Amino acid sequence: MAARRRKMDRIVVLACIILLAGIIHPSSCRSSKPSVKSSCGYQSCHATKPGFINVHLVPHTHDDVGWLKTVDQYYYGSRTGIQKAGVQYILDSVIEELQANRERRFIYVEMAFFWQWWEEQNDSTQDIVRDLVNQGRLEFINGGWCMNDEATTHYADIVDQMALGLNLLNDTFGECGCPRIAWQIDPFGHSKEQAFIFSQMGYDGLFFGRLDHEDKKQRMASKTMEMIWASSSLGKTGWLFTGVNYNLYQPPPGFCFDILCSDVPLIDNKKSKEYNIDQRVTDFLKYCQQQSEAYATDHILLTMGGDFTYQDANVWYKNMDKLIKYANERQANGSRFNLLYSTPSCYVKSLNDVKKSWPLKTDDFFPYGSDAHSYWTGYFTSRPAFKYMVRQGSNLLQACKQMDSALSWNRATNKGDVNVMKRAMGIAQHHDAVSGTEKQAVVQDYQSRLHEGVVECQKTQTSFYQSQLPIRGQALPDVKYCQLNVSQCDVSENSSRFVVNIYNSLASNVDKYVRIPVANGESYQVLDPDGNVVDSQVIPIAAGVHAIPGRISTATDELVFLAAQLPPIGSKSYYVEKIAKNHRRVSFKSKLQRFIPGQDHIISTDKMKVRVDGTTGLLSSVTVNGKEFFVQQEFLWYPGYNGDNESADRRSSGAYIFRPNGTDAFPMRRTMAAAIITAVYTGPLVQEIHQFYDSWVSQVIRIYRGQEHVELDWVIGPIPVSDKIGKEVISRVTTTILQSDGTFYTDSNGRQTLRRELDDRESYTYTPTEPVSGNYYPINSHLYIRDPLGEQQATILVDRSQGGSSLVGGLIELMVHRRLLHDDSFGVEEPLDETAFQRGLVVRGSHYLILSDGPTSARRYRPLAQQLYKQPHLSFVPTALHFNEWKSLYRTQHQLISRALPENVNLLTLEKRTDGSYLIRLEHIYDVEEDKVLSAPVTVSLHNLFPGFVIMSAEEAMLGGNQFRKESQRLMWNSMDRQYSSKRPTKFPDVELQPMEIRTFIFHLVRDNRLDK
Amino acid sequence: MAARRRKMDRIVVLACIILLAGIIHPSSCRSSKPSVKSSCGYQSCHATKPGFINVHLVPHTHDDVGWLKTVDQYYYGSRTGIQKAGVQYILDSVIEELQANRERRFIYVEMAFFWQWWEEQNDSTQDIVRDLVNQGRLEFINGGWCMNDEATTHYADIVDQMALGLNLLNDTFGECGCPRIAWQIDPFGHSKEQAFIFSQMGYDGLFFGRLDHEDKKQRMASKTMEMIWASSSLGKTGWLFTGVNYNLYQPPPGFCFDILCSDVPLIDNKKSKEYNIDQRVTDFLKYCQQQSEAYATDHILLTMGGDFTYQDANVWYKNMDKLIKYANERQANGSRFNLLYSTPSCYVKSLNDVKKSWPLKTDDFFPYGSDAHSYWTGYFTSRPAFKYMVRQGSNLLQACKQMDSALSWNRATNKGDVNVMKRAMGIAQHHDAVSGTEKQAVVQDYQSRLHEGVVECQKTQTSFYQSQLPIRGQALPDVKYCQLNVSQCDVSENSSRFVVNIYNSLASNVDKYVRIPVANGESYQVLDPDGNVVDSQVIPIAAGVHAIPGRISTATDELVFLAAQLPPIGSKSYYVEKIAKNHRRVSFKSKLQRFIPGQDHIISTDKMKVRVDGTTGLLSSVTVNGKEFFVQQEFLWYPGYNGDNESADRRSSGAYIFRPNGTDAFPMRRTMAAAIITAVYTGPLVQEIHQFYDSWVSQVIRIYRGQEHVELDWVIGPIPVSDKIGKEVISRVTTTILQSDGTFYTDSNGRQTLRRELDDRESYTYTPTEPVSGNYYPINSHLYIRDPLGEQQATILVDRSQGGSSLVGGLIELMVHRRLLHDDSFGVEEPLDETAFQRGLVVRGSHYLILSDGPTSARRYRPLAQQLYKQPHLSFVPTALHFNEWKSLYRTQHQLISRALPENVNLLTLEKRTDGSYLIRLEHIYDVEEDKVLSAPVTVSLHNLFPGFVIMSAEEAMLGGNQFRKESQRLMWNSMDRQYSSKRPTKFPDVELQPMEIRTFIFHLVRDNRLDK
Repeated sequence: MAARRRKMDRIVVLACIILLAGIIHPSSCRSSKPSVKSSCGYQSCHATKPGFINVHLVPHTHDDVGWLKTVDQYYYGSRTGIQKAGVQYILDSVIEELQANRERRFIYVEMAFFWQWWEEQNDSTQDIVRDLVNQGRLEFINGGWCMNDEATTHYADIVDQMALGLNLLNDTFGECGCPRIAWQIDPFGHSKEQAFIFSQMGYDGLFFGRLDHEDKKQRMASKTMEMIWASSSLGKTGWLFTGVNYNLYQPPPGFCFDILCSDVPLIDNKKSKEYNIDQRVTDFLKYCQQQSEAYATDHILLTMGGDFTYQDANVWYKNMDKLIKYANERQANGSRFNLLYSTPSCYVKSLNDVKKSWPLKTDDFFPYGSDAHSYWTGYFTSRPAFKYMVRQGSNLLQACKQMDSALSWNRATNKGDVNVMKRAMGIAQHHDAVSGTEKQAVVQDYQSRLHEGVVECQKTQTSFYQSQLPIRGQALPDVKYCQLNVSQCDVSENSSRFVVNIYNSLASNVDKYVRIPVANGESYQVLDPDGNVVDSQVIPIAAGVHAIPGRISTATDELVFLAAQLPPIGSKSYYVEKIAKNHRRVSFKSKLQRFIPGQDHIISTDKMKVRVDGTTGLLSSVTVNGKEFFVQQEFLWYPGYNGDNESADRRSSGAYIFRPNGTDAFPMRRTMAAAIITAVYTGPLVQEIHQFYDSWVSQVIRIYRGQEHVELDWVIGPIPVSDKIGKEVISRVTTTILQSDGTFYTDSNGRQTLRRELDDRESYTYTPTEPVSGNYYPINSHLYIRDPLGEQQATILVDRSQGGSSLVGGLIELMVHRRLLHDDSFGVEEPLDETAFQRGLVVRGSHYLILSDGPTSARRYRPLAQQLYKQPHLSFVPTALHFNEWKSLYRTQHQLISRALPENVNLLTLEKRTDGSYLIRLEHIYDVEEDKVLSAPVTVSLHNLFPGFVIMSAEEAMLGGNQFRKESQRLMWNSMDRQYSSKRPTKFPDVELQPMEIRTFIFHLVRDNRLDK
Repeated sequence: MAARRRKMDRIVVLACIILLAGIIHPSSCRSSKPSVKSSCGYQSCHATKPGFINVHLVPHTHDDVGWLKTVDQYYYGSRTGIQKAGVQYILDSVIEELQANRERRFIYVEMAFFWQWWEEQNDSTQDIVRDLVNQGRLEFINGGWCMNDEATTHYADIVDQMALGLNLLNDTFGECGCPRIAWQIDPFGHSKEQAFIFSQMGYDGLFFGRLDHEDKKQRMASKTMEMIWASSSLGKTGWLFTGVNYNLYQPPPGFCFDILCSDVPLIDNKKSKEYNIDQRVTDFLKYCQQQSEAYATDHILLTMGGDFTYQDANVWYKNMDKLIKYANERQANGSRFNLLYSTPSCYVKSLNDVKKSWPLKTDDFFPYGSDAHSYWTGYFTSRPAFKYMVRQGSNLLQACKQMDSALSWNRATNKGDVNVMKRAMGIAQHHDAVSGTEKQAVVQDYQSRLHEGVVECQKTQTSFYQSQLPIRGQALPDVKYCQLNVSQCDVSENSSRFVVNIYNSLASNVDKYVRIPVANGESYQVLDPDGNVVDSQVIPIAAGVHAIPGRISTATDELVFLAAQLPPIGSKSYYVEKIAKNHRRVSFKSKLQRFIPGQDHIISTDKMKVRVDGTTGLLSSVTVNGKEFFVQQEFLWYPGYNGDNESADRRSSGAYIFRPNGTDAFPMRRTMAAAIITAVYTGPLVQEIHQFYDSWVSQVIRIYRGQEHVELDWVIGPIPVSDKIGKEVISRVTTTILQSDGTFYTDSNGRQTLRRELDDRESYTYTPTEPVSGNYYPINSHLYIRDPLGEQQATILVDRSQGGSSLVGGLIELMVHRRLLHDDSFGVEEPLDETAFQRGLVVRGSHYLILSDGPTSARRYRPLAQQLYKQPHLSFVPTALHFNEWKSLYRTQHQLISRALPENVNLLTLEKRTDGSYLIRLEHIYDVEEDKVLSAPVTVSLHNLFPGFVIMSAEEAMLGGNQFRKESQRLMWNSMDRQYSSKRPTKFPDVELQPMEIRTFIFHLVRDNRLDK
């Protein structure tokens, strides 16, 4: 019977494969309800007129996915006292008005909103929308869940939030719903990695509104407002046509026909005293003339919309209908202008048809100075606690999607809904979310949504363990999660015996020092999955952590042990139990070093030695593998400029803007000398120097056995403001690499690396007006300086987005926290004064300081950066069972993939798709020439990657996962090779990756029947 | 040939009659495009639920036909800086949203706007609108050109403006476009005459929002918010169901779902943190419960709209849809409320179905005190110059329509477009137009529109004379018009010979003293139509008139003569020529009386003697037909209260509110005694005493030979405000009729008379809080006091709308001008500070003071009031011809009707209709028992009324002229007789009129062929 059933299974499975192979197709940007009438895309564009200046009017609305109001408040239109904005009405209204006149066009951008609306619509409205989409009258642009920030986002999150929107669009509208143009009209600067992601997702163009005022001026003068952005080392495949909007994303002054605006309507009734059509058309064409002088072709794009416009779309269209009619009537009298309803894609197509050669752009658009004194570099750091929550959420989401996939292919129940986290994270990427530039009430909403996502992902994690660990079906006791970021954990603090499950979401084997809060004075024994006792050390929790408001914990110490060789995409369980004190053989107590006044403090491991100056109390040198680097580190603060914002030079430092009052940062040390050192702990696993600058600034300098970086674990806040001065706190590392001399390197969304020059810009002439903030750049992963000879490099890795710079040779600084008492007048209308717990926000964070030579630096920081981002996930199960009992019931180790991937390859994504297929993204984590060995192209074999399963029907997809690579048809620019939209011959399952390349595959998993034999 | 042609003509005419008889039918409120699907009116109402409190949600918009912006600015939506209001968008939007859901309803009110919109729509939209109207989903309410003011309007203008809208509706939509309900939700008090007009137009009900706060409170407590208004002496035919809105015309607080409002939308997504549907429905029903406690039935009406709401109708309907759905779902759990989309007519029908007995109301709703210190009695006088312009416009329009008719039936060309004046006058009746409560820029627009109307009517008048006067086709030289209100006339001042055409629009023979500005020192001879010399007198123009800013004239004198026995609806031409000086036999020079210090000044005619006190310079007695009345008259001023409007007792006097600072008016006389008399002129025709109080107050006391009233011709302004005190100027007449003791009589829109009691109200308990302004009433025609025995009566007739009162026995006062430096905070946001010519407004006006006994007073003032209103229209033709030459070429006298109507009958209207038919309105100008003889019912024969024409197909119509009386079906109330909607047997052409009755007839005129015989 058993054999026959298996055979039956095989038949069913085969049928399923065939079915599934069919189902996979909707992901190819084709409509699941194919419509013969559909004429979307470039063929739906209105004709332009050769010989005329074609004025592409692009009706659009810019709907912030949270800012002054929460997402739902914006959607429903509540809290109009704050802002008159109700997205539900926008979509209602636009759909109605598009029906009224076939000529009209509209673009919609933010899927978080569109989706909420779509799900409320009845079939008949959905059909109408489908028709409008199929006819190109309603076009989706950008199409991500939000219009993400480009400075403070991690590339994994950008990919995820874009894919979330794109796939919903594809599932719903098929090919006609597939956005062709990226539309980042509001973000405050633009990253190269973002451009790269768009190029890899198959976009034909990118538009944005904000770039440095000097850059814009120069581009207008040279007619280079439009260009090709060479966004990576991958050559033309990474090219992206990029256009800068003339007027941000606003309509010409005087031509905002919105219920929110106050401009004069067009009045063509000659009998009326208000008649104005002649004058209005003249004014409009004058503006068009002006704009056309800044652009290189006979086409110009006019953004006809703004923030939350089109709640009453009729007002717009009625007036634009007239504008077009009367302006074009003038052609009979020699007017050179031809107005038409258009979309960014139709505009791009027109430019593409021009067949001209475009300038190339290779750097990025950071930082963004909207005027000589308004550098938008403050938001790189604004709301550091939220930024950390988002980064942690990102990490959890990646693990959650992996576990969700595993649950799915094992046909196990997943009690969590990963979509909650996907959407919460999608929203959090918005350019007024993770950027920290929203109102306080709104960030709380984002946090609450993220929290809901975390809860769902914890459910998934619990389901995952329930499904994976039991050997004979014995249910796992309740799995618990802890707030380890504030060293708080109910289970570990109050249980005599508990199991720690440690999940590693990286596709490589990882050594991780785990820290578990424990009760005062206890001793513990830690057993590895096989029951072997592993070394552990108990070390006091720093005073700064104890003082974090909201921390509810009795823990005074942390138990530290090494979770060695965590399996790729898998977990290990460690068994921890209290033991008699002084059982020093396995559980070490840290040793408090005695102070000898004036003498340096030194801690050291097998690999490193760290010296702290006995006089200043500051780090003075780090020795790595015997090579000593003289390096100082200390905290300082800039006083935030307090202006009334009445003119550029009176701009306040605020949520967006960093504008220190003067160029000097003040040292934090108010106490003298060694007083800032409160303790030095030594022990076999970890060594720590505890610094206490003041009640609101403290830090632990930490090194672990076997590791080659210094961890700087700081607690900052509440920043005192009783002196009425807002403060922006930096951690400054001073090295002897003086030859760096204003050259430094920063990452782009945690991936590519860009070279920066102090007081200089690669692609335009820059006038330094704000010597500090004009040199700040966003850091999401790494910031380093090196000497030109490559002998020394100082790299700092961050655990969240921060602003950073190198203002002097040998120096790097990162802004870790900021609290300001004045608004910078860019709309938030609240000072960035986070008063959590009525006191002010306290932030705990880490910097990893790596000192190395140049050539080996990448192989040090690249994997470490991945590990810092994808910290293993700890969960706790208190138990009464002894280890052997536990071990007999539950697996203590398992992994989802059969082997680690090559060390230069990251499994960026593993996720289940709505149609039952799976998607993986593989990336090469090194850039060209970054490492002699590891930068080489690498081939990954996916053969037998998933134990027990066979990969079926695998197809390479574009990065968004919404279209197959073979079906993607990007426009070609300039003299580009016809092969540019490379249909690379893929000998699946062997995947070749170029440096910094990401490749995406969609496939089905079928149980490997060979196992049954 | 001539005879045959005449026969042909007859056949054509006959065919025309048949055709016309058919064409006349659209006026019966039947669709010209009959639709079998139409189900409008009461049958289109949604069902209500017995046993529930039925909550009638009435979606509506209140669109001021000018106020803070001009009509066109409101229509197109310009000047949003002043007010966010664009009516074009409202209608666009509502029509779209009504289509989206059949349950929805909307009412529209102001035809001035609807018409402008309708004419811009294409056929397909017009068809959609017709369908919506035919299905009762869009319902016209009120349906006049505007929502007219009720205090400062003349009844003729109310009828005209209502008829203008109603007939356009009828012509366009037929029966389904016929409004059934009157909707005066915003006017600041409500007149009995307005209610009467509505009843006569066939309305089934009236709703309004503003009534005195004490009245409202008492009505709410006694559940008498709804009543039957017995609006005339005509019994049940004048009954009108009247309801007071609970919340003015606003939605319940918190439930304004408009783009202009800030209330929270309904959110029914349980997943959203913003979810609020439970709480919102509970709040709404709580409000409904509260409201229902103030009303007598199980139905309540909720006004879901406000000023210029529904520009984005979707916001309203989307939320109301949810409100209805979720509120009614609660019925399953015992809720007593049933919400439904409704209209005022459906609500009225529901109440009518209840068959209860309603309280009766017989007085009116003036004055309106919105709180203890805000009596809306200032606007009775605000903008006196504009109020006069409107009254003059009204007079001109009546004549213009008569002439337009005559041109039509004589098949002569009319170069003027009477519709311009109809519409301008229609707009001017708006409750923020003639009321004087608009912004300065807006009143200028009204004036400019009226001016355009005047120009068109002058063209009609010119065409009329061109058509009527030439005997042998000799074209009439250019006809000129003069600004006689400031004694300015280019023709008469600069011509040696000219003809004055004097047109009398009354249907009675009128004696009119004509005053023509002439050059200094010249003598003139005046010849009547037959060439007889008539007496004339030259008299100096008063100094006050000379000083009127903007007056451009060389005239120092006026030539006065009596145009005796002007024909009914007809004209006479007088021939004037300069003659040698001292030709005193025919042209008298006025004699300047010598002053004898301390001695009274006396002027007298055959009928009257006027005495002015030699010490005070003020009028002291008037003797009429030998009976002396001791009467003083003087000008005084109230200082306007200057408050900050933060609370009721800090209310400023302003455009709406009259609130004197204290109760005393200050006398104007700053100079002593007789100094205010500057001249006394005597002569055979006219006698004048010139008073000069100050540079800004002067007056002529004037009597004419043969007449029995005193004319007080005053010039007031610019009111000085350099002392920072706003001033409200009154003319106070003090008599010895002390027994009047707080009882006085005022007209209602120039027609019915209401009895007023000082510090008392007929229908509610009144607390005097503002002793002066709380006793002010609107005067449009007459104000009088009398002694109870009827021995003495003092009546003042006004030439425009003014506020007036009797604050002490024997005293009457009228406010003639006001200038204020503070806004009263009811929205205008401008002080009523008219700074014409950069100096301040100067106003010239007249009061007619009549002293008589009680019983004969009506026959004195009723015809005189008609004459004061319908002043003859003068036009001028300069000529070189001698009289006989002129007389040989042009008729010098003619009339349109064959005979004068009875003296108690007024031809209110004679006008041409769009279908080629004509409309007349006949009115009895006396009220019941006002005059022993003239108050009797009167029968008018229309037989042979129009010389040379036969009246064909005459049908009696309702007052609006939009439905036939026989087809009008009004709802019956209470125990009313079934015959109440009286189909009175009309033995046409004999028309019987009851006191104060107006009857309307529509007919065709056909040339009387007997004349051909």
